[in-house]
Amino acid sequence: MSILCIIFLIFFSCKDNSNNKNNLAAQSGHPSLILTEQGVKQIRANLGSIPIFDISLSETKADVDAEIKNGIEVPIPKDYSGGYTHERHKRNYIKMQKAGVLYQILEDETYAKYVRDMLLEYAALYPTFSVHPKPRSYARGKLFWQCLNDSNWLVYTSQAYDCIYDFLSEEERNRLETDLFRPFADFISKENPKFFNRVHNHSTWGNAAVGMIALAIDDDSLLQRAMYGYKEGKIDPELKDDDGGYINRDGKMGFLANLDEPFSPDGYFTEGPYYQRYASYPFLIFAQALQNKKPELNVLYHKDSVLLKSVNALINLSDADGDFFVLNDAQKGMSLQTKSLVSAVDIAYHFGGNNPELLSIAKSQNNVTLDDAGLAVALGIKNGKDKPFSKKSIELTDGADGNQGAVGVLRNENLELVYKYTAHGLSHGHFDKLSFSLFEKGNEVVQDYGMARYVNVEQKGGGNYLEENKTWSKQTISHNTIVQNEASQFKGKYDIGSKHHSEKYIFDDSNNSVQVVSAKESNAYPGTELHRTMVLIEDKDYSNPFVLDIMRVKSNAPNQYDLPLYYLGQIVQTNFNYSKYDSPKVLGTKHGYQHLYEEAKGSPNQDNIKLTWLANNTFYSYSATATANDEVILARIGANDPEYNLRAEPSLIIRRKDTQNTVFASIIESHGTYSPISESALNAYSNIKSIKVVFDTDAYTVVQFETTKGKTKVFAISNMNADKEIEHKLTINNKALIWKGAFTLK
Amino acid sequence: MSILCIIFLIFFSCKDNSNNKNNLAAQSGHPSLILTEQGVKQIRANLGSIPIFDISLSETKADVDAEIKNGIEVPIPKDYSGGYTHERHKRNYIKMQKAGVLYQILEDETYAKYVRDMLLEYAALYPTFSVHPKPRSYARGKLFWQCLNDSNWLVYTSQAYDCIYDFLSEEERNRLETDLFRPFADFISKENPKFFNRVHNHSTWGNAAVGMIALAIDDDSLLQRAMYGYKEGKIDPELKDDDGGYINRDGKMGFLANLDEPFSPDGYFTEGPYYQRYASYPFLIFAQALQNKKPELNVLYHKDSVLLKSVNALINLSDADGDFFVLNDAQKGMSLQTKSLVSAVDIAYHFGGNNPELLSIAKSQNNVTLDDAGLAVALGIKNGKDKPFSKKSIELTDGADGNQGAVGVLRNENLELVYKYTAHGLSHGHFDKLSFSLFEKGNEVVQDYGMARYVNVEQKGGGNYLEENKTWSKQTISHNTIVQNEASQFKGKYDIGSKHHSEKYIFDDSNNSVQVVSAKESNAYPGTELHRTMVLIEDKDYSNPFVLDIMRVKSNAPNQYDLPLYYLGQIVQTNFNYSKYDSPKVLGTKHGYQHLYEEAKGSPNQDNIKLTWLANNTFYSYSATATANDEVILARIGANDPEYNLRAEPSLIIRRKDTQNTVFASIIESHGTYSPISESALNAYSNIKSIKVVFDTDAYTVVQFETTKGKTKVFAISNMNADKEIEHKLTINNKALIWKGAFTLK
Repeated sequence: MSILCIIFLIFFSCKDNSNNKNNLAAQSGHPSLILTEQGVKQIRANLGSIPIFDISLSETKADVDAEIKNGIEVPIPKDYSGGYTHERHKRNYIKMQKAGVLYQILEDETYAKYVRDMLLEYAALYPTFSVHPKPRSYARGKLFWQCLNDSNWLVYTSQAYDCIYDFLSEEERNRLETDLFRPFADFISKENPKFFNRVHNHSTWGNAAVGMIALAIDDDSLLQRAMYGYKEGKIDPELKDDDGGYINRDGKMGFLANLDEPFSPDGYFTEGPYYQRYASYPFLIFAQALQNKKPELNVLYHKDSVLLKSVNALINLSDADGDFFVLNDAQKGMSLQTKSLVSAVDIAYHFGGNNPELLSIAKSQNNVTLDDAGLAVALGIKNGKDKPFSKKSIELTDGADGNQGAVGVLRNENLELVYKYTAHGLSHGHFDKLSFSLFEKGNEVVQDYGMARYVNVEQKGGGNYLEENKTWSKQTISHNTIVQNEASQFKGKYDIGSKHHSEKYIFDDSNNSVQVVSAKESNAYPGTELHRTMVLIEDKDYSNPFVLDIMRVKSNAPNQYDLPLYYLGQIVQTNFNYSKYDSPKVLGTKHGYQHLYEEAKGSPNQDNIKLTWLANNTFYSYSATATANDEVILARIGANDPEYNLRAEPSLIIRRKDTQNTVFASIIESHGTYSPISESALNAYSNIKSIKVVFDTDAYTVVQFETTKGKTKVFAISNMNADKEIEHKLTINNKALIWKGAFTLK
Repeated sequence: MSILCIIFLIFFSCKDNSNNKNNLAAQSGHPSLILTEQGVKQIRANLGSIPIFDISLSETKADVDAEIKNGIEVPIPKDYSGGYTHERHKRNYIKMQKAGVLYQILEDETYAKYVRDMLLEYAALYPTFSVHPKPRSYARGKLFWQCLNDSNWLVYTSQAYDCIYDFLSEEERNRLETDLFRPFADFISKENPKFFNRVHNHSTWGNAAVGMIALAIDDDSLLQRAMYGYKEGKIDPELKDDDGGYINRDGKMGFLANLDEPFSPDGYFTEGPYYQRYASYPFLIFAQALQNKKPELNVLYHKDSVLLKSVNALINLSDADGDFFVLNDAQKGMSLQTKSLVSAVDIAYHFGGNNPELLSIAKSQNNVTLDDAGLAVALGIKNGKDKPFSKKSIELTDGADGNQGAVGVLRNENLELVYKYTAHGLSHGHFDKLSFSLFEKGNEVVQDYGMARYVNVEQKGGGNYLEENKTWSKQTISHNTIVQNEASQFKGKYDIGSKHHSEKYIFDDSNNSVQVVSAKESNAYPGTELHRTMVLIEDKDYSNPFVLDIMRVKSNAPNQYDLPLYYLGQIVQTNFNYSKYDSPKVLGTKHGYQHLYEEAKGSPNQDNIKLTWLANNTFYSYSATATANDEVILARIGANDPEYNLRAEPSLIIRRKDTQNTVFASIIESHGTYSPISESALNAYSNIKSIKVVFDTDAYTVVQFETTKGKTKVFAISNMNADKEIEHKLTINNKALIWKGAFTLK
């Protein structure tokens, strides 16, 4: 004990060493998973002088005290998410975890008794439960309708058990382990291999659940199962889950496989930030417990500390308000404020070298975990070590080895451009290669629709994925990318899409005035090559940065190309004529088109179209090249939506028919503001007079744009050679254009 | 001078007397309109020690300094609102007013020179201007497209002139008065009697403009014209303006008539808060100048201090965020933060007895006027005298004598119910008798659409009223009130509507648990009597207060009744079956129906319909009585809207055909919340199991509702006798119901 104390003190005295690794020796005894005996002592010694921790503690205490007053209730499982028994069991595990912590920190047996009594009720009932009555899941749980939620329960409850372990009699422990924890762990693993033995966020929870209880009860064979999967549980490689994804095609399984596969070396989680936020809790909490109990496994520093990097990646995938960018299945509004991110940030700070920028995130969360990591953060904040978290442009590669495309984020002033050229993103992926979204000051300007689901809103399909998630949200036309011949990429088939990824071509944020991200996609539509380049330009002639978008299409046959823009807001003006139909028509019959109303059709008056709209009291304009035969469709989401599951939001679609090779070039500006208080409109007009593709070959594409002040600029890109050192020369309008590197703006 | 000083000191020493009236003696010399010589001295003495004033001053200085650096520009008039020359002339008068004040306070001649030079440019050009080239107004100005804006210019510029009067040479003054101010005042009065000689907010500006310059140049005959109108300018009583309102039917005119007519004794301005906010500036600024220069007229205390009361009324007509309730033509988002409200609040504080609650509004504005009134507010805040402004339930009568109906606002916790049973509201009125809107925490829950206009957004019809304002916004179907036979109230005719007003029946906020507002309308549809009662109920069984709405209809013939509910948000669930059409149909052909798409039609499964929706992460439910033959229409705004001038927002319409007498009873609840961060839905279901009209005669209506917990309540109202002392007895379901007063909830 005293040796550990000294080690602890050494750790605290050398915390300025940014590469230190915590917990040099394995913890034994209890608590030892998340809280440690030494951590508890240190916490008790600091109580009352660490404001953010003290606040979190008093909130937790008030919460649990109220719960204890209400009494224990362990209902017979009955409901889907959002329903009473579901929410009650969820509440129970959250409160037990908290009560366990309170017992340790406050040394008040009330909390230990509360956890004990509730666990004993579970132990009495659990053996009587068969599978949950609701049938919708491929892997039904016992307490909940899916094993996933049962696993959540065990991840939390293992911590509670660890905290009150020493308080319990041996008989009580035997009873709980025999009647509850071991059969519980067996059920979600042995009896549900197709849930447990996957590379999927579900399995991560399952692995962590089994692993956490294994650590709590010190069962090494159970821990092996968590780390490497339930080897005896074979899965038919053709089996699919509820979302249409393969359960397990390659035999990979266990916590380490789940850690290796979905995270790229940059810490990007292939399902996207919404699921990463969800998945990060079991990853980090179990890794933290392993770090404490089995430091020799070094899980937190596995794959060049990918778990710690993933926290940084996740923060960088949030907008100015801390809301996560919407990539793949994702509910809007999920943010850095969510509980699992409090854990993630605290763990990353504590175990990842005390990055002072993380303290500013923790400060905005105004909450820390009540454990060693939370204490470290609270002390850091108390000592004024926090620095602002500076989000910059960043490219985060996708794929276990970082070679399956990427997400590129370009930032300048208030604009954040998110460009997606990743792998499919497992079963939560969308058919949205080369799509983008645009944010300003934390508001969506050009939106990604996100998922069709109202999580935990029982009335909306039990809170689960709605049918429209498949028929609309995942389809290509619901994204800001090109659709060929009114069919989704990869024919909308997961088994095809999941084999491919886009190819990164350029990501260059070295010059803040011309930041470029460029990628190619050649599998989405066989025979067609897509190459999209997005440029965030800062120019002193404009008050704000703006986006130049060049979508180049090359095909072996003529096609119809649709390029939608999901602007949000109210149309102010267009420079093209359109006529609204008396009543909207349904745009198509499949691949998501059946969910769009065509409200109006227009055609370009000239070789450019322009749309100006107003959203969040800001004027935006979209200026795009057009051909005389282009159709411009003004559309709205909501057709074939019998239960109003979709949001009635607008889109502008440029439709180019009977075309083999083409370039769609456009500029998106945020150029003005409106105040409903002063009723003044500032810079309500676009600064772009025209945009034109002045040169386009397989080797080069050059786009020229002219401002309303008569200034002309060209952006040129080498389409086949991204070498920074190579010189290029072109003659455009009898003028030589010479530059070095993959692109230039002149 | 020294006498005035003493008077001034007396005033300041007795400011705790809440009924004091400022400025006992008339001001002479300059400045004397808004700033006074004594005020300037006092301001100079306090500079640097009155934070809110110091901030306002430094902001103003920075603003004007930048403007002076940019140089003077007086362009040839050319554009509509939002266009360059319009905005430039507007900027000029705002900057001149500010520069005049800066000259007085800072004693820096740079500012006086700036005003002088700009005024001389105007004086050089003004005689060369004929009428403004843009033809849209019934009263075209010279600098602007309408006399209204020319008047704005003069109201501000008169103040600037007053400030630099003593700085100018006599020759300069002669030149400005001869070439600019007198012809300017004559143009907007003598040459535009149909603009000047009305009771209308336009004329208020015109009168104030002429009056302010009259005070500045000390011309009593011009002042007479401002106060009592241009007597020689006769107007055809049948003449109408651009909005369809009569210019002048009864010969009333001049500033005092404008003050008498539109304000009720409670200070409600008949056009509603949006126009009151606009109109209040000339009313208050001119009244303030009159108070300084002609205290014997006592204009600020005219009609029992109606102008000062109007400020209180206006504040009470704003939601929790300070945004004005939307009544009649009104742009959403206009708020207490607007510049004219800074003046209004400062004047009301300074001249109206130093109400400490006004200081908290001034604090939230973080801005004061740079004059005697602003100084008083700044000193009040500095001395910590501010108290929170407590908005309570309030009834504000309409009509010059307060007998033309009213607006009733019921408030409890976060809910604010706005019920309108006023007169028509002059030319900005809507055909919306007995309509309501509902707000929670400053968010619209059940909306009033407001106007179809993007003020100062030039691309949208020059920033002016759009065609859809007449065809949609003013029509009855665009409001939350009953429509008979698909026709607007008063046939949608202003000349009929403006003759009538609804009748107040009950306004009782004495019991916070059962607040009742009830009114009747018998002219909107001749032969049909409408009686709507709205009750804001607080009950310990519910977490939030809720609204009970009883719309009683009695007619001399069978009709079709449509009752719309403009809920905002996403449908979560309905208890009735509906089927969405493949594509929306247009609901009708006129009276606003041509702007609604019918998306789905449903019919009640039982004698109640229920709609639950989600907006601003809050769950709302509408539970309404229904008959088997009722149709439920799910509609959306936007049909026949060729330029996307309307917002595509939803509505639920209960349609009851072939019915003579009927009651629509309903309950609106805010019952739960959703967090996209914790993804938890709290109380997502309505608490209302059923609602039923259990008794209805000419004398009484009784509505019973049952909660999901099985509790039953009845609300009974006497329809013909609102006496608080009378006892009523009814037998309902064989049970006696006895109560005293107009209503009861048991």
